[in-house]
Amino acid sequence: MPPRRCTASAAAGQTGSDSDLDEFIMRCLSCEEQYDMDDAGTCRECYQEANEAEEELRLEIDDLKSKVSFLTLSSPTLNPSTADIVLVPVDDSDAAPIPAHKHVLSCRSPVFNAMLENDMEERRSGTIKISDVSHDTLCAFVNYLYTAEASLDNQMACNLLVLGEKYQVKHLKTYCEKYLIAKMNWNKAIANYAFAYQYNCKQLRSASLAVILDKMDLFTQNEYYAELVDTNPRLVVEIYETYIGKQLNTAGTL
Amino acid sequence: MPPRRCTASAAAGQTGSDSDLDEFIMRCLSCEEQYDMDDAGTCRECYQEANEAEEELRLEIDDLKSKVSFLTLSSPTLNPSTADIVLVPVDDSDAAPIPAHKHVLSCRSPVFNAMLENDMEERRSGTIKISDVSHDTLCAFVNYLYTAEASLDNQMACNLLVLGEKYQVKHLKTYCEKYLIAKMNWNKAIANYAFAYQYNCKQLRSASLAVILDKMDLFTQNEYYAELVDTNPRLVVEIYETYIGKQLNTAGTL
Repeated sequence: MPPRRCTASAAAGQTGSDSDLDEFIMRCLSCEEQYDMDDAGTCRECYQEANEAEEELRLEIDDLKSKVSFLTLSSPTLNPSTADIVLVPVDDSDAAPIPAHKHVLSCRSPVFNAMLENDMEERRSGTIKISDVSHDTLCAFVNYLYTAEASLDNQMACNLLVLGEKYQVKHLKTYCEKYLIAKMNWNKAIANYAFAYQYNCKQLRSASLAVILDKMDLFTQNEYYAELVDTNPRLVVEIYETYIGKQLNTAGTL
Repeated sequence: MPPRRCTASAAAGQTGSDSDLDEFIMRCLSCEEQYDMDDAGTCRECYQEANEAEEELRLEIDDLKSKVSFLTLSSPTLNPSTADIVLVPVDDSDAAPIPAHKHVLSCRSPVFNAMLENDMEERRSGTIKISDVSHDTLCAFVNYLYTAEASLDNQMACNLLVLGEKYQVKHLKTYCEKYLIAKMNWNKAIANYAFAYQYNCKQLRSASLAVILDKMDLFTQNEYYAELVDTNPRLVVEIYETYIGKQLNTAGTL
């Protein structure tokens, strides 16, 4: 519905009665509710342009989703007959080797690429041994390299992030980091902060620090506090330093 | 900049001078230009919501772009050592075979998948022979299966669309169809219409038909008209039928 027209004669020569004020009420082209000048947003041209821009963004999203779907590979475990390499979790001796393809591993990880391009043990034997990882995590890792998807909980996000760091799969690292940030709370903040420090995750580190600083009065009561003081007292010092620095800054601007 | 406030006292008790009307001018929160009630678009809340929605769409696009980049494989011609199959353009006997990977071909095309899953000649020999295609087109085709990108001109778009239809690579077909529609003009319309009919491209067929019908008085003068009458007169009849049908419909609504 178009906004009510405001003509010169309507605006001029008013006598001040309430009914006259109704002439200055408009109807929003988007929500179709009435509003007055105090609540005005955009002109009609900008509204129309914004609508067109949104439509273009939605089309771009459709295109990209279709591209993602096209580029997604099926997991090699579903059809292992063409695999030319296997990954083995060395700490899980009963686990079945996980089939994969050298070309895919090389494209996804510069570490695998270096390993498989040069005449290293892994290339000759067709086996990549991976330590400190369970069979389930390694399956999820390989699956991610083919599909860019993983079913995460807190533990799996941490496990995959560690592999993402080790094999320089940045996309996986970011994916897990986003999950951990989304699930962040005060109980997890110190553990997340220490984890982020260890595996070089700037976003996660900054997000967990913000949560810690927000409840600094409870810092020493967090269940991971004593552990962090024990394992990495410098990190604890850093947190205190940041807190004090912020307090001084705030005081300086008051 | 916020819009100018319209208070009760400003709206009421006006005497009708031009300067009073200035009180009813608002400033658009988007373009920051002034507008009056006749050109009003949205309320402030909808403007803010639209801004947030746009920001979310842009973040989604960034995510999807990063996913596309992660899932893109490097072309097998750049590093053929891990290839386990070759594609050969049979009509180009001097051309070098094009290396590829069975897993990638199977994921991208149900036709290749059936060929390579079952114990067919191609699987045993490790060679897929492809007829009626140049070496350049076949290279571009294989490259597309790894990257979802191709450098197109009109001829290449047609060549790849034919392969997309033959090997049921829908994403490639749509990609080429979009290119041909974007480059459509009256000179190409009849040829595109016949091509779209032959290779089952609904969008391209509909787009070329619209261009033909728009200049129906010049239909018989199109350089491809005589050729189409010769090779596929039924298609020409269909175009005439559609034109007459539309004329009758238009007349019926008048």
